Amino acid sequence: MEKLTLVKVGGKIVETPNRLRQLLEEFATLGTNKILVHGGGTSATALAETLGIKTEMVNGRRITDRNMLQVVTMVYGGLINKNIVTALQSLHINALGLTGADLNYMRSEKRGVTNGIDYGYVGDVTKVDGKALTELINKGIVPVLAPLTHDGKGNLLNTNADTIAAEAAKALSEHFEVKLVYCFEKNGVLTDENDEDSVIENINLEKYKILVENETIKKGMIPKMENAFDALRKGVHKVLITNAEQLTQPGKGTDVFL
Amino acid sequence: MEKLTLVKVGGKIVETPNRLRQLLEEFATLGTNKILVHGGGTSATALAETLGIKTEMVNGRRITDRNMLQVVTMVYGGLINKNIVTALQSLHINALGLTGADLNYMRSEKRGVTNGIDYGYVGDVTKVDGKALTELINKGIVPVLAPLTHDGKGNLLNTNADTIAAEAAKALSEHFEVKLVYCFEKNGVLTDENDEDSVIENINLEKYKILVENETIKKGMIPKMENAFDALRKGVHKVLITNAEQLTQPGKGTDVFL
Repeated sequence: MEKLTLVKVGGKIVETPNRLRQLLEEFATLGTNKILVHGGGTSATALAETLGIKTEMVNGRRITDRNMLQVVTMVYGGLINKNIVTALQSLHINALGLTGADLNYMRSEKRGVTNGIDYGYVGDVTKVDGKALTELINKGIVPVLAPLTHDGKGNLLNTNADTIAAEAAKALSEHFEVKLVYCFEKNGVLTDENDEDSVIENINLEKYKILVENETIKKGMIPKMENAFDALRKGVHKVLITNAEQLTQPGKGTDVFL
Repeated sequence: MEKLTLVKVGGKIVETPNRLRQLLEEFATLGTNKILVHGGGTSATALAETLGIKTEMVNGRRITDRNMLQVVTMVYGGLINKNIVTALQSLHINALGLTGADLNYMRSEKRGVTNGIDYGYVGDVTKVDGKALTELINKGIVPVLAPLTHDGKGNLLNTNADTIAAEAAKALSEHFEVKLVYCFEKNGVLTDENDEDSVIENINLEKYKILVENETIKKGMIPKMENAFDALRKGVHKVLITNAEQLTQPGKGTDVFL
C-alpha cells in the first residue's frame, strides 16, 4: 500500500502569512500523496464582526445561522482555500481546493438542535467518497480541503476542520497507509501548557484517560484527541500532533496510539 | 469529436436566487460535457461597500487593489462558486468549483498600469490547460469556473468572466466541438435595448461592424461580441448570446458567426 500524509493546519498558522508560507514550504517538500486540511475560524470571526454579525461559540463550535454560513463560505471556501491553493501552485504543487460539495466528496447532515442548542448550518459527516480523493491523488493532484461539507439538498454546512481531517483520513485508509498530522502552534501535547519543552512523546488510549482525569489534557485538546483515536480505530496508520514548524522533523511532537 | 456546451451566466442572474435556480435546473438538463462560468460583480460591489472599500470601474473593469482582491476572492471563489456547486450537486450534477489556480488550469499576467490606469490585481490570460479540463469532463465532472486566475507566483488575479468563458472555450476546442453560450438577462442582441422582441437572430463580423458604427451595438455588448468573434476565430464551433430563461430553447437568442 502506498503512503499518504494528511496534514491539518489550524487557524492560528493559516492566519499568520509568514507562518503559513513556512508551513506550505515544508508541506511542499513532503513526498507525493498528500492532502492539506485548513481551518480559519479567527478570520471568519473577524469578517463577521466587521459585517456586524455576532459570533457565538458553544463547546468550541460556531453557531452558524444563515448570515454566518455566508461568512464561512466566503472565508473558508474562498479567501483561505484559494490563497493556499495559489501559494502551493507557486511552489509547483498541483493543488485543488475542495469543499465537501465539490465532486460530492463529503456529505453531512445538518445538526440542528442538539441538547437544546441550535447549531444552525453545522454538518455532521455522514459519507466520504475516498475513491474520488484517491483518483485525484493518483494523478499527482494535492487536494486542499476547506472545513465545509454539504447535505446533498443544496445546503453547505460548516464542519470542524479536525473532523474533516479525521474523516478524510479514515476514508483514504482503504486505499493508502495514512499518516494524519495535526499541526498547530504548540510543540505537541504538553504536560504543562506554558512549557513548550513538556511534550508527551507518546500517548495511548489508557494513558489518555488518565491524563484527562487528572486534567493534564483539557479543553480544545480533548476533541482533537478523540478525533485522533477515532481515526486510529477506523484504520488510520499513524496520528501525530505537532508544531507546524516541525512538520518534517522526525521524532518531534506527540505520537498517538490506540 | 464529442460536443461540449460552455455556459457563461452573468451577474444579474447569479445574484437573483430564483433566476439562478431556474438557470441551474435548465443547465442540469443539458447533455453531458458541459461547463458553467459565472460572474458576480454586483455581490462583490455590495460586500465591498459594507466593508467600506470603494469600488472603482474603468471601461467596465474593476480596479482591484489588495483589499478588493480579498473581496472578489471571497465572493467569486467562495460564496457564489460554492453555492452554485452545492446547488448543482443537489440536482445530481457532479460539479467541481475552480479558480485558475486550482489544477493550475488558467494562468494570467498582472495587467498593472495600462494607458495610465493602474488596474491592480487584474489578470490577462496567458495560458489555459485544456487537457486538465478535458480529463475532468471525460469523467463526467462539470467544472464551475469562477472569474479568478493566477500568475504562478502566488497571486490570484481578478479576470472578466466573459473572457474566462472565451479562453476556456478556445482551449477546449482542441478536444471538443464547443458551443459557447453567453446567458444574460436580455433575449439576445437587440436592435432596440428597450424592446425584448427586437432580437437580431444572426450576426456575422461584417454586420457587427455596421451595427457598432450606427451605435445599435454599444457599451458592454462590445467586449462580449469581441470575445465571441475571438473565440470563433480560434476554433470555437458556435457562439450564442441569449436569455438565461431560454437556455434550452432552440432558435432563440442571437447566433454569432464569423
